[in-house]
Amino acid sequence: MQVVVTGGLGFIGSNLVSRLLQLGHDVRVLDNFSTGHERNLESDVGHSRLTIDRVDLTDAALTVRAVGSADIVYHLAANADVRDGWKHPRKDHEQNVVATHNVLEAMRVNSVPRIVFSSTGSVYGATAVVPTPEDAPFPTQTSLYGASKLAAEGLIQAYVEGGVISATIFRFVSILGPRYSHGHVVDFVRQLLENPKQLHVLGDGTQTKSYLHVADCIDALVMHLTPSQKLAIFNLGVDATITVRDSIGWITSEMGVSPELQFAGGSQGWIGDNPLIHLDITAMRATRWQPRHTIRDSVVETTRWILANQWVLERTK
Amino acid sequence: MQVVVTGGLGFIGSNLVSRLLQLGHDVRVLDNFSTGHERNLESDVGHSRLTIDRVDLTDAALTVRAVGSADIVYHLAANADVRDGWKHPRKDHEQNVVATHNVLEAMRVNSVPRIVFSSTGSVYGATAVVPTPEDAPFPTQTSLYGASKLAAEGLIQAYVEGGVISATIFRFVSILGPRYSHGHVVDFVRQLLENPKQLHVLGDGTQTKSYLHVADCIDALVMHLTPSQKLAIFNLGVDATITVRDSIGWITSEMGVSPELQFAGGSQGWIGDNPLIHLDITAMRATRWQPRHTIRDSVVETTRWILANQWVLERTK
Repeated sequence: MQVVVTGGLGFIGSNLVSRLLQLGHDVRVLDNFSTGHERNLESDVGHSRLTIDRVDLTDAALTVRAVGSADIVYHLAANADVRDGWKHPRKDHEQNVVATHNVLEAMRVNSVPRIVFSSTGSVYGATAVVPTPEDAPFPTQTSLYGASKLAAEGLIQAYVEGGVISATIFRFVSILGPRYSHGHVVDFVRQLLENPKQLHVLGDGTQTKSYLHVADCIDALVMHLTPSQKLAIFNLGVDATITVRDSIGWITSEMGVSPELQFAGGSQGWIGDNPLIHLDITAMRATRWQPRHTIRDSVVETTRWILANQWVLERTK
Repeated sequence: MQVVVTGGLGFIGSNLVSRLLQLGHDVRVLDNFSTGHERNLESDVGHSRLTIDRVDLTDAALTVRAVGSADIVYHLAANADVRDGWKHPRKDHEQNVVATHNVLEAMRVNSVPRIVFSSTGSVYGATAVVPTPEDAPFPTQTSLYGASKLAAEGLIQAYVEGGVISATIFRFVSILGPRYSHGHVVDFVRQLLENPKQLHVLGDGTQTKSYLHVADCIDALVMHLTPSQKLAIFNLGVDATITVRDSIGWITSEMGVSPELQFAGGSQGWIGDNPLIHLDITAMRATRWQPRHTIRDSVVETTRWILANQWVLERTK
């Protein structure tokens, strides 16, 4: 198949590209090189079935040309910086809503029939229903990031109803694994490399979250290359949660350090941080998919990968 | 209070402006004059406490200046043309999402502490839960209009969580009454004035909907001038539904005509038309509010108003 992957140089995108090439597909990466990096695809660059285009998806006309003809678009390009939303209150909207609209219009113009989209468990805001199923009570948004992904989901759903495309929307928990570049594991490893005796932690350490290994995530993404229904919406996560303290224990043990922990305090790490994220994955389990990595394995493997690829610490400073 | 009303020359906006002036408030209307009309405020134009500014709210810088200082913004400006979304697939987004974001940023910059927003029952898409409460299962979007209002709601909610504003979001059914200019009553009256013997009807006549009188709507809006909580979300409608056939009966009876009915067929009037809209208004009823007009009264009064104000038919051709 002819597959377009937006954000294909990013953490999840590049893992998807590698898998799609292994599966024999032709892959065209569209990426703005802002947080993505060709180094993520160093094992694949030069592959005869891979092309990489530098494109700004907030430019409608460029996006129409860049998407061109294809069988499917995996639209993973996004500003995934939940924490810093209020430092630039328009960025989530531009990168996540305007870009998605441009991709959808490009698909309409080019008659590309299918999209798979990476949404987020953040669209459930601070829902009272945990584990949270896809049909949880209509949530309210607690972050600019969540609001932008909700808006993008709504656009995709309207384009499905309009008969333009079929779609699968995945709502992810946080993802870990090789090529990870953004989030608490990178923050902690960086701090501990600089000073193994002290670790600053946002919140009070009791924030409870779920983490999925990127390989399990990619398993799910490639299962949806072809449509089973016009519109499908699935949570992607694992049937377990950990606290920030658990994660700290595994990371420090892996690094062989025993830092003093300094907690910033409060139940939230930042404005809009949901102190409890745990998605109900019953629906996705009812298909052939199931996660094969424990959260502990994911945290440990991610720590090892960062230690072996410290260029990622330089890039995300 | 210093009140800004965006879309204050429109159907609902102008009714709100008249009421706010009666209540003694200072009112500043921001309107782009695209579907709104000064004629809607002819009884109020020249009032010492009313100013009307022509502003394009899709222009961020202009919006910051236009909003200026105020105690509250009633943000009613919108593209409310659900039916023709696919004729211009970016218009709902620009008029309803970008404009709302600009208004929110203008409020942040100008320290305006409160917004009341007109959302829509369309955000519930084709929900299976009818009457539909505010916490219905997380819906999927069926129109570009619904998706745009959902996106605007999400932005407002994120700004509330960010501590920028307090907000009340009202999800309206269709509104009827004086100054009505857009929707099935105007379509039917226009057709019947041109040819009393024949009436073309979208869908099959069984579409079932709920309609609220604009005076009841304004009662609810002005109850929320001051916040009772940081974020409130309320459906606004009535505890009854009618079919398109009911409405046709009342309109033709009021006009003294007996047309042959020609149905386009299908359960939907247009793509994304929800053949059954009935909101649960239990939450709003639990406050002091209740609707005082029946749907029949609203349809009849609207028909009479259009017949007495046929300039509205010219404007909306």
